[in-house]
Amino acid sequence: MVKNNGQEPARRGRPGYDQQSVLNVAVAVFNKHGYEATSMGILAENLGISKSAIYHHVPSKGDLLRLALDEALGSLEAILDEPGASSGRADDRLEFVVRRTIEVLTSKLPYVTLLLRLRGNTEIERTALERRRQFDHKVAALVEAARDEGRLRGDIDPRTTTRLLFGTINSIVEWYKPGGKLTAEKLADDLVSMIFDGLHLPAAARVIA
Amino acid sequence: MVKNNGQEPARRGRPGYDQQSVLNVAVAVFNKHGYEATSMGILAENLGISKSAIYHHVPSKGDLLRLALDEALGSLEAILDEPGASSGRADDRLEFVVRRTIEVLTSKLPYVTLLLRLRGNTEIERTALERRRQFDHKVAALVEAARDEGRLRGDIDPRTTTRLLFGTINSIVEWYKPGGKLTAEKLADDLVSMIFDGLHLPAAARVIA
Repeated sequence: MVKNNGQEPARRGRPGYDQQSVLNVAVAVFNKHGYEATSMGILAENLGISKSAIYHHVPSKGDLLRLALDEALGSLEAILDEPGASSGRADDRLEFVVRRTIEVLTSKLPYVTLLLRLRGNTEIERTALERRRQFDHKVAALVEAARDEGRLRGDIDPRTTTRLLFGTINSIVEWYKPGGKLTAEKLADDLVSMIFDGLHLPAAARVIA
Repeated sequence: MVKNNGQEPARRGRPGYDQQSVLNVAVAVFNKHGYEATSMGILAENLGISKSAIYHHVPSKGDLLRLALDEALGSLEAILDEPGASSGRADDRLEFVVRRTIEVLTSKLPYVTLLLRLRGNTEIERTALERRRQFDHKVAALVEAARDEGRLRGDIDPRTTTRLLFGTINSIVEWYKPGGKLTAEKLADDLVSMIFDGLHLPAAARVIA
């Protein structure tokens, strides 16, 4: 699996691009033009190398897509194996997963953007969407467990909660700019505050308007 | 402006399609294949009429897009002129706008979906995106006013709040199925509960786990 974070290509002795940096450019081009509208010719142009030089790194455009999606999905799936996601109260585990998901999303923004825009037109896309669904189901199970433990409100169907929660988190890819004034950590704090505690100030803390 | 709600085409004496029903089909096809990938030929095929019969209703594909986006944007903009959005406490006005936005989004789902997927590649799209930004700015001003009135928490930048709020609302188009078990009204209740009051139960209401 690809281990590089997509920011600093690790060169392995060979001059020019390595697979990771080819992948970084491919993901940017896929996000800009759409995967289907991107030909190997367009990729070669954006990389400034020949088509045959791309084939040195990957056998096909589909392999670039598969590697890119695996980078996003592998990082998300790994969250669920971390200790913070697997022991303790369910609402704490849920909050942990939300925070780590935002970290992955902001640090691998182009990769997660590609994943979230998939429409499932090819086998590679459908396989990735199935892995994404599995991830969502595991988070939905956490929402349900936190509700059963009496920590989350019981008047919202856990499936609705999970959809709204992912809706909020995933929408970040549409506007978040890494390196700007809003750090990923503060964004995670804000999102967790809004979703778990709400935007309303408790009555006791209110200034009389 | 188009007044029909996109569900029941109003026929005006002429046999076959009227403009509204042509529009309904066009919006469905744009959402499925993407606006740019949709030719007048594909539209004609989906409508089961000839290309020249389409031109009887609208001069061009761009006009179909413009009419469709105007239906979504006109409905959203009209919310801000309703009494519930223009008088009373800012947090109540904000909640009103959120609820009505969800109503528009669920009742005109394909039209709002088209609007939300725009990438701004043509002048028509850029004009629509500018109108959408104006709408967002007016809601952002409500968020700021509610914060100044001491009703919303002060530790989140109002711009972040607005982006997360729209992120949550807009994500509904990706999964909501009108006519299913979850009514638009219950969905609005759930979203408002989560965003304004939070998913956590207040400590006093908790069952000991």
